[in-house]
Amino acid sequence: MSVEVTRLPTGLVVVTDAMPHLETAALGVWVGSGSRDEQPDEHGISHLLEHMAFKGTSRRTARQIAEEIEAVGGDLNAATSVETTAYYARVLRGPVPLALDVLSDILADPAFDPEELRREQNVIVQEIGASEDAPDDLIWDKLQETAFPSQPIGRSILGTPATVRSFDRSRLGAYLRRNYRGPDMIVVATGAVEHLAVVAEVESRFASFAGPGPVTPEPARFIGGSRIETRDLEQVHIALAMHGLPHRDPNLPSLQVFTNVLGGGMSSRLFQEVREQRGLCYAIYAFHAPYSDVGMFGLYAGTDAADVPELMHVVVGEINAAAETINEAEVARAKAQMKAGLLMALESSTARAEQLARQLLNWGRPIPLQELVAKIEAVTVESARAAGRALITRGRPAIAALGPGPGLESAATIADSLARRAA
Amino acid sequence: MSVEVTRLPTGLVVVTDAMPHLETAALGVWVGSGSRDEQPDEHGISHLLEHMAFKGTSRRTARQIAEEIEAVGGDLNAATSVETTAYYARVLRGPVPLALDVLSDILADPAFDPEELRREQNVIVQEIGASEDAPDDLIWDKLQETAFPSQPIGRSILGTPATVRSFDRSRLGAYLRRNYRGPDMIVVATGAVEHLAVVAEVESRFASFAGPGPVTPEPARFIGGSRIETRDLEQVHIALAMHGLPHRDPNLPSLQVFTNVLGGGMSSRLFQEVREQRGLCYAIYAFHAPYSDVGMFGLYAGTDAADVPELMHVVVGEINAAAETINEAEVARAKAQMKAGLLMALESSTARAEQLARQLLNWGRPIPLQELVAKIEAVTVESARAAGRALITRGRPAIAALGPGPGLESAATIADSLARRAA
Repeated sequence: MSVEVTRLPTGLVVVTDAMPHLETAALGVWVGSGSRDEQPDEHGISHLLEHMAFKGTSRRTARQIAEEIEAVGGDLNAATSVETTAYYARVLRGPVPLALDVLSDILADPAFDPEELRREQNVIVQEIGASEDAPDDLIWDKLQETAFPSQPIGRSILGTPATVRSFDRSRLGAYLRRNYRGPDMIVVATGAVEHLAVVAEVESRFASFAGPGPVTPEPARFIGGSRIETRDLEQVHIALAMHGLPHRDPNLPSLQVFTNVLGGGMSSRLFQEVREQRGLCYAIYAFHAPYSDVGMFGLYAGTDAADVPELMHVVVGEINAAAETINEAEVARAKAQMKAGLLMALESSTARAEQLARQLLNWGRPIPLQELVAKIEAVTVESARAAGRALITRGRPAIAALGPGPGLESAATIADSLARRAA
Repeated sequence: MSVEVTRLPTGLVVVTDAMPHLETAALGVWVGSGSRDEQPDEHGISHLLEHMAFKGTSRRTARQIAEEIEAVGGDLNAATSVETTAYYARVLRGPVPLALDVLSDILADPAFDPEELRREQNVIVQEIGASEDAPDDLIWDKLQETAFPSQPIGRSILGTPATVRSFDRSRLGAYLRRNYRGPDMIVVATGAVEHLAVVAEVESRFASFAGPGPVTPEPARFIGGSRIETRDLEQVHIALAMHGLPHRDPNLPSLQVFTNVLGGGMSSRLFQEVREQRGLCYAIYAFHAPYSDVGMFGLYAGTDAADVPELMHVVVGEINAAAETINEAEVARAKAQMKAGLLMALESSTARAEQLARQLLNWGRPIPLQELVAKIEAVTVESARAAGRALITRGRPAIAALGPGPGLESAATIADSLARRAA
């Protein structure tokens, strides 16, 4: 394995994977905090901070940040999620030091200029408006709120127009100092990079990120329930969540196999039964999102209002049936897909960078391919079924439905029939 | 260059790029026909055929197609566009022959079972419903119709529920025989593949695709005008088109540089002025889509209803100004981004496969990197400005707007001020 890891005195970890056949590099700064680490009065501040990082530093205006990276053919981007915030650059071999300089500058020394802040708050209000117009996106916010009510983990990442407009530079600075700390940050570089050169750059540029280790957020409580909203749309958009498993749970691979068999690909039970046999949906799929102390099984379907009861009965029936009848061939197929997915990620510098950063944040070390494969191989028909049964009996599901028609309530009632008492 | 090309006696071209450091392969069958090649009474049949390819053959049921590929960890997908239809597989090295067998089977011998057809028509009606609920997607259909009214190139790729339901197996078969012909098809394989082995597989499996060369579609006529629809949304979604250049036009690289400077990245004029300086948008960008005999410059912005007039004045102003004042640094930045994009595509088997297939369809040969780079290098400040001026003076723009409020009409009026008479 070409992966190398260096932990700096501040606690910040540098991880690289030099891929000698590549001429381009993927760089990332990953911070182990996100919307879940916001205080009650900080709704949306993680994402606002991510935007404001690009809006100028002592050394560079917002325009200079964009121009310097694009002048060398690179690009910069960033994303805020529930437990992480990531800043990426993709560049050719030569400008790797420049890209690391820009990434460190925008995080270590953001200007938070009040005029820039006011404009960026407007931009985010526009972003909130755009997400309101994308029901297959918005439905996930509604679902997250229903799964985890009254908790930061259940709130939208974007915030609301009012909360976003409420923050000033001192609030941004306080959030940054509290959450962007060396022991909770990873700098990752893959592709056309050399470990020691990257470490030297990071040592000199990221020294200001020190501080104590990561703070454990308040434990998440998966509550469940329903959130139904009538809206004048063509389709009913339905999302269902069940209480899943955290990153490091030993049963996670079995639950991932269960989820893949149920709704992972074209041969999955939901795709075959709901789309191929009944023609009820264009899109139907399931996935599992693990967090540090909890996980969420998620399922999406879009359908005609008139078909909601049939769709929901089939979905509930398939979930229940899968937990009893998943078979050898299905488990083998799911494992093959998961293993091929790992190999494909190894071939892309961007996918590889994300994989390594997540491993460092979740496990504190890079996980060798053989170890990942062994965990997948260890899943059996019985362990996949057991993971499905445990998912169903762990508590009440959450359901969100958005769309026209009187069928919406039935979606909630039928979903609730999933809530089985543990035997 | 590791690219190899073999033209089979039927006219079908096999192109491969063996990337020896990869363990996975990207395979594609590209057909040089799409929605534009439909007869007036065939609206949506290209896309329906693409769906029906996955619904069973003499040798395989729909379920077997999905299961065989996913059992080896691979996946299959397809996409229909205006001038092409593509079927892809991504697999590990071992199953390359299996994937080529499945790809050939689904195209050479589709069953078009009437019961499967009825269900798949329902699936596509659901897909049409989903696209109605995605305004930033739907707006492009409205724009295409406005740019190219009463022509197949201007119609939606999905068709309408009524047209999709009107097709039977004999219509599908006739469309397939008319359009899927060897001299108008490319089989591409990149990554963990060997040219001669791929050629041998393709020779034995794709022999039934023979026939005469590609038919030239009726010339496209870019007309322009406006299409305004009031809808209860959070944002006004605006898309603007101008009459651009075809694939092989020698001025295309200059127009691509113009478009990139105007709205290609974070340092572009539109991003800087509309988002960064004024905070009017979350999303604003421009691109250029070339076809065989015409091209379309496209621009998207989503904004508040109240801000539509300001947004449109700025957009029109920036387009006009760019054609006069684009400078050396901007042109250099655009060129650097375009060249880096080419290098990045070379490192991904899927991006490389798409790039090669398009080169074969558009140019009849793979274009060496040096030749692509030389075309980009040849662009000057003056040629980029001239491409912008020619774009503006080529005729009336097309504009589509979807959203709330009384400002929609002003979008059309202001856009029309772009229509300048050639000097």
